[in-house]
Amino acid sequence: MGIFITMEGPDGAGKSTQIDLLRVYLLQKGYDIIVCREPGGTVISEAIREVILNRDYKNMGHMTELLLYAAARAQLVEEVIQPALDQGKVVICDRFIESSAVYQGIARGLGVDLVYEVNRFAVGNAMPDITILLDVDAETGIGRKKQQAELDRMESEKLEFHRKVVEGYRLLAERDKNRMVKIDGRNSIEEIHRQIKVAVDDALTRETNRM
Amino acid sequence: MGIFITMEGPDGAGKSTQIDLLRVYLLQKGYDIIVCREPGGTVISEAIREVILNRDYKNMGHMTELLLYAAARAQLVEEVIQPALDQGKVVICDRFIESSAVYQGIARGLGVDLVYEVNRFAVGNAMPDITILLDVDAETGIGRKKQQAELDRMESEKLEFHRKVVEGYRLLAERDKNRMVKIDGRNSIEEIHRQIKVAVDDALTRETNRM
Repeated sequence: MGIFITMEGPDGAGKSTQIDLLRVYLLQKGYDIIVCREPGGTVISEAIREVILNRDYKNMGHMTELLLYAAARAQLVEEVIQPALDQGKVVICDRFIESSAVYQGIARGLGVDLVYEVNRFAVGNAMPDITILLDVDAETGIGRKKQQAELDRMESEKLEFHRKVVEGYRLLAERDKNRMVKIDGRNSIEEIHRQIKVAVDDALTRETNRM
Repeated sequence: MGIFITMEGPDGAGKSTQIDLLRVYLLQKGYDIIVCREPGGTVISEAIREVILNRDYKNMGHMTELLLYAAARAQLVEEVIQPALDQGKVVICDRFIESSAVYQGIARGLGVDLVYEVNRFAVGNAMPDITILLDVDAETGIGRKKQQAELDRMESEKLEFHRKVVEGYRLLAERDKNRMVKIDGRNSIEEIHRQIKVAVDDALTRETNRM
């Protein structure tokens, strides 16, 4: 069995940058790596992503949104993540089940337990071994995003929504300290990368000892 | 509260024809009617329908399929069905939760209980008051469909799949005789319509007595 690493945090927290650095680091250590992103990562999941993030669909129900994310996730797990883990690879995924717990469970108000219940069907055995949370406040995160590109349906939500996301992530990290590692996203890119390496090396050692 | 009628049966069973006749019958009786179809019925649900039925997506996972149908259903319930029922209207829906129970639960093999569990989140309180099952064998149903139009991803499944669908519907009708009314689809259009009128009149009387 491989190792499943997920990267979480609000929009603009620096997830993509840190995933690139982590991928290079692990490649150099000789690991076979797969990187994927949510929602998306397969032809079918990208088609679902188009529906989810379409800015015209302002009246999408919260439950619809939750089920669409779960559907895109189910396809990504079946086609990409589970096969890679079965082949002993390291999988790094940009957002995963905690994004649903925070965005739909907390910020939309559906409840964290309900979100995990629905997603249990989507992820099967593919639960992350380690989840890195890049913690930045809502103003910083969405401020960075705005400079990059036009915002999608989720990113266009009010600041109040993004604040709930940030608080939600902190709550989850507090709840599950075994799996989730919270890193201060205000640090320099190099310092964040250093802390991620420590956390991931630790998880890899634990996994190696388990085998 | 209005009345929620769903029409079920394999492809080519004659659901559309019977829904048209039933709609006219109930209109003449003075009811306010909404007719919808699954998957679809709202802008967002139709976008999800495009993904579900796309013939190129041959490697769609069964769980992905289940969650997409549930997502389309959640949106239809929230935007159309629940508001119409709240206004006391009669809602007639072409396929609903039993389609998932039969196609994904039985024919795809995910299990009927799992399907109802996932769909509980999608339908909320909008469970059908009466479900008409038009019972035809698989050869008859899909044979009729082939003469009409190019088959979509579901319709293109092997005959064995459609046989499981037919058997699945019969099983559900056996399990829930209170809500489901099985009608022999080999009868003439007029005779089937007559039997549907009897069943629906009965449900309307029960509903009126309850209020």
